[in-house]
Amino acid sequence: MLRNDQLDQWDRENFFHPSTHLAQHARGEAHSRIIETGSGVHIEDRDGNRLLDAFAGLYCVNVGYGRQEIAEAIAEQARKLAYYHAYVGHGTEASITLSKMILDRAPDNMSKVYFGLGGSDANETNIKLVWYYNNILGRPEKKKIISRWRGYHGSGLMTGSLTGLELFHKKFDLPFDNVLHTEAPYYFRRPDLAMSEADFVSHCVAELEAMIEREGADTIAAFIGEPAMGTGGLVPPPKGYWQAIQPVLKKHDILLIADEVVTGFGRLGSMFGSEHYGIEADIITIAKGLTSAYAPLSGSIVSNKVWDVLMKGTDETGPIGHGWTYSAHPIGAAAAIANLKLVDELNLVENAGVVGSHFTSAMRDALGDHPNVGEIRGEGLLMAVEFVEDRETRRFFDPSKKIGPTIAGELLKNGVIARAMPQGDIIGFAPPLCLTGDEAQQIVDAMTKSVESVLGR
Amino acid sequence: MLRNDQLDQWDRENFFHPSTHLAQHARGEAHSRIIETGSGVHIEDRDGNRLLDAFAGLYCVNVGYGRQEIAEAIAEQARKLAYYHAYVGHGTEASITLSKMILDRAPDNMSKVYFGLGGSDANETNIKLVWYYNNILGRPEKKKIISRWRGYHGSGLMTGSLTGLELFHKKFDLPFDNVLHTEAPYYFRRPDLAMSEADFVSHCVAELEAMIEREGADTIAAFIGEPAMGTGGLVPPPKGYWQAIQPVLKKHDILLIADEVVTGFGRLGSMFGSEHYGIEADIITIAKGLTSAYAPLSGSIVSNKVWDVLMKGTDETGPIGHGWTYSAHPIGAAAAIANLKLVDELNLVENAGVVGSHFTSAMRDALGDHPNVGEIRGEGLLMAVEFVEDRETRRFFDPSKKIGPTIAGELLKNGVIARAMPQGDIIGFAPPLCLTGDEAQQIVDAMTKSVESVLGR
Ligand SMILES: Cc1ncc(COP(=O)(O)O)c(C=O)c1O
Ligand SMILES: Cc1ncc(COP(=O)(O)O)c(C=O)c1O
Repeated sequence: MLRNDQLDQWDRENFFHPSTHLAQHARGEAHSRIIETGSGVHIEDRDGNRLLDAFAGLYCVNVGYGRQEIAEAIAEQARKLAYYHAYVGHGTEASITLSKMILDRAPDNMSKVYFGLGGSDANETNIKLVWYYNNILGRPEKKKIISRWRGYHGSGLMTGSLTGLELFHKKFDLPFDNVLHTEAPYYFRRPDLAMSEADFVSHCVAELEAMIEREGADTIAAFIGEPAMGTGGLVPPPKGYWQAIQPVLKKHDILLIADEVVTGFGRLGSMFGSEHYGIEADIITIAKGLTSAYAPLSGSIVSNKVWDVLMKGTDETGPIGHGWTYSAHPIGAAAAIANLKLVDELNLVENAGVVGSHFTSAMRDALGDHPNVGEIRGEGLLMAVEFVEDRETRRFFDPSKKIGPTIAGELLKNGVIARAMPQGDIIGFAPPLCLTGDEAQQIVDAMTKSVESVLGR
Repeated sequence: MLRNDQLDQWDRENFFHPSTHLAQHARGEAHSRIIETGSGVHIEDRDGNRLLDAFAGLYCVNVGYGRQEIAEAIAEQARKLAYYHAYVGHGTEASITLSKMILDRAPDNMSKVYFGLGGSDANETNIKLVWYYNNILGRPEKKKIISRWRGYHGSGLMTGSLTGLELFHKKFDLPFDNVLHTEAPYYFRRPDLAMSEADFVSHCVAELEAMIEREGADTIAAFIGEPAMGTGGLVPPPKGYWQAIQPVLKKHDILLIADEVVTGFGRLGSMFGSEHYGIEADIITIAKGLTSAYAPLSGSIVSNKVWDVLMKGTDETGPIGHGWTYSAHPIGAAAAIANLKLVDELNLVENAGVVGSHFTSAMRDALGDHPNVGEIRGEGLLMAVEFVEDRETRRFFDPSKKIGPTIAGELLKNGVIARAMPQGDIIGFAPPLCLTGDEAQQIVDAMTKSVESVLGR
C-alpha cells in the first residue's frame, strides 16, 4: 500500500481539484482528505477516521456506501462489455433495459431518455434540445432561458449561466446574455418580512410575468427550475408556487425543464419532485440518484410533446447532431439498474419521507428556539438550518464571520459531514436515503453540540 | 435472458440515441444493433454476429475489448469505494495515483490535471479556465477562441461551437459569436491544387494572421486544435504546420489548447500528439485513450504557466467556482490506471506506430491506384481513405450519392466496422492499438472487396 505522505505529495503536485482554493491546496496549507472506503452512511479515510456522511457525497450516494449488489453489477458488465457506443441506434441490454426502467418510473407524459454523464451535460443537452425544438417549429427568436436566482444547474458555460449563484459566475464572464434570472422561491428570504407565504408566491409570479412582458414571450424558450432548490440553500418551494407558476409558462408557450438531479429517485420522499409538487414538465433532468454515484450517468427525459418535434426535426434534416462518446455507457447503465432495484427493494423512497420528517422535527426540537436559528426547513431527506444574527429582524451575520463554514468544521470534529452552502450561513443535510432514525438523532445531537460550541446556547 | 424482440421494442419506445435519425429509429425503419460482448479487436452482437471493430468504438477502445485486468480493477474499486467527491481537496488513492501517472507521461511543461467525464466537458473546462486566466491577468477583452474548420471538440453549446462541422451547428444556432474558425490544415482539400504542401502551410499561417489582425490580438484568448484532425476527416497536418503556427500564437500571447482526446496515449504511435509534432501546448485535453472507454473519464492538463495564474486567482478571489459532481470519479480513475499500465505492458504505443505504418502501406498497395481513391493518409493507427469522382481534377462525388456510407455498409457486410466521416466520402479507420499485422491485412482485404463492389475496379 502506498504511504499517505507519498500520496499527499503526489496530490499537491499533480491534482487540480474542483471547487478548491488551488493555491492553498498546492502549498499544503489546506487540509486534504483521502477517502478509503465506506459502508451505509459512513465513510472512512486513510487516517482511520470514520465519519457519518450526512451529505451523501454531493447529495448523490442515495443508497449509501458499499453496496456490493451494485459493485457486482458493475463488475459483471465490465467483464462482459465495458463499452460500446450508442450512436446511430446502437445499444446494450443494460442501456435499453434502463431506458425502460426510467420511463416506467417517470411521469406519464414522458417519452424517451437521452443519456449523459453528469447533471451539467444533461442540462446542456436540454438547452440544445429546446433551441432545436423552436427552430423546427419555425420560431428562431424564441431562445432565451429563464432560470432563478440561487438555482443550481451545473458548472459549464451555459449551465453555469443557468446557475444563479455568484461563485459560479465571477471571473468566468457568466451568465450569458440569453439567460435571465427571476426571483428565487425562497420564502425565508422574502424581500419584505410582512409578506405572507401566499403573497410571496404572488410576488414570484408577478416578477416572472413582468420579465416575460419585458422581454417578449416570443423570445423565451424555456424556464428551468429545481422542484425544491438544492445548492442555493436547500429550499422547498412556498406552498402553491408550482401551481401558480405553471399556468404562466403554459400561457406563453414556454417549456418547463424540471431539474431533478437532486430530487429524482427519492430524495423528497417521492420518486420524482415533479410528482411531489404536481409539476408537469416538458423535460426532466436526472443524474445523482440515478446511479447513487456508483458510476457517472445522467439523463434528459423528454416528453411526448418535445419528442414529436424532435422526430419531425430528423425527418426534415436528418440525424440529430448531438452525441457524447460515453452517452449510455454500459457501466453506468448497469450501476443504475442495480441501484434502482435496490431503491425499490429497500423501500428507500418511503424511508426518505418517514425518516426525513422525523429528522426535521428532531432538529426543530433541538434547535428551533436557538436565538441564531432563523429557519429549519426540509422535505424528505433534504434539510437545512439557516442562521441569523438576529431572529426578530432576520439580520444575517456578516459573511466575513464565516459562521456556516465554522459550524460545518465543528460538525466534522464531531464526526458528521454536512455542507456549508454558499451565499448565507446555511448548513445543509442530505444524507443517504437509508438513514435510520437513530442515525438521524446522532446527526441532530452532533449539530446541537456544534452550534452551541460556535454560537452558545 | 431477455428476448431480443423485447429489447428491440423497449429500445424504440424509450431510448433517445445520440447522433441518430430519431424518427426512423422510433418507427423501426432503421436497423438497431445490440452489442453483447467483445474481445481484442472484435465485438459480438446479440444476433451472434462477430465483427472486427476497425474504429475501436468511437476511436476510444485503444487496448481492445474484454481486458479482464481493467474489469478487475473496476470491480475492486467498486467494492471498496465506488464514489467520493474530489471537491475542496478530497481525493482517493486511485485519483491521486492517476494524476501522477498522467503528469509522468505528459510533456515537461505540464503541471496539473483537472478531471472530467468526457472530451466535451474537458474542453468546456478549458474555455472556462482560459477566460478566468485572462480575467486574473486583467485582460477582460481577450476572450475569443480560434478553432479550425473541420475541428471536432465536442457536442455541447460551446464545444459544438468549437467544432467546425455543419452537422453540429445547424438547427442549434451554433457556433457562438466568440468562436472563430480558421483554415483546416487539410492539404488534400487545399483551395488550389497547384499549391505545394509548404505553400499550403504558408496559406494556413496567412489566414490565421489575417484573422488575428482583423479581430485584434487583444480580443483573442486561445487557439484550439487536434494535433492530427479526427472527425473532420482523419487528417495528419501538412509538414511543418505546427512549427509555423506556434510562433504566430506566441507572438500574440494566444494560448494553445491541444485537443488530444483522440491522439493522447498512443493513437499516433507516440504517447501524445504534442510530442509527435513538436507542439508545446498550454492546455492538453484528454479522454478516450485515458481509460480506453472502460469507464468515463477525461482531463484537462494545464501547464505551469496557466497553473501559476490559476493559483494567483484563488489567492485573490477564493476557491475556484468550477466542479462536476463526478470529477475524478474513482471508478474512472481505477480504470485509467489499469489501462495505462496495460498500454505500457503490451507496448501499444510502439505497436500503433509499427502496425499503423504497415496498415497504411498495405492499404496503399491495395487501393492506391483505384480511380476513385483520392488520398490514403494516416499516422499511427489513424487512417483514412478519401474518395473522389475524378482523381485528376479532384472532383468530389455528389453527396446525395452517399458513396462513403455505402462503402461503410458494404464493409459491415464483410465483417468490418469502419466509419463514414461527415462532409466528404471518407472512410475512417482507428482500430484498437493492439491490432496485429494479420488483422490489418483482413481490414485491407475487406475494404478492397467493398470498394470494388461499390465503385468497381
Ligand atoms: C440540481 C442540479 N443540477 C445539475 C447539477 C450538475 O450536476 P453535475 O455536477 O453532475 O454536473 C447539480 C449538481 O449538484 C444539481 O444539484
Ligand atoms: C478531438 C475530440 N475532442 C473532443 C471530443 C468530445 O469527446 P466526448 O464525445 O467524450 O464528449 C471528441 C469526440 O470524439 C474528439 O474526437
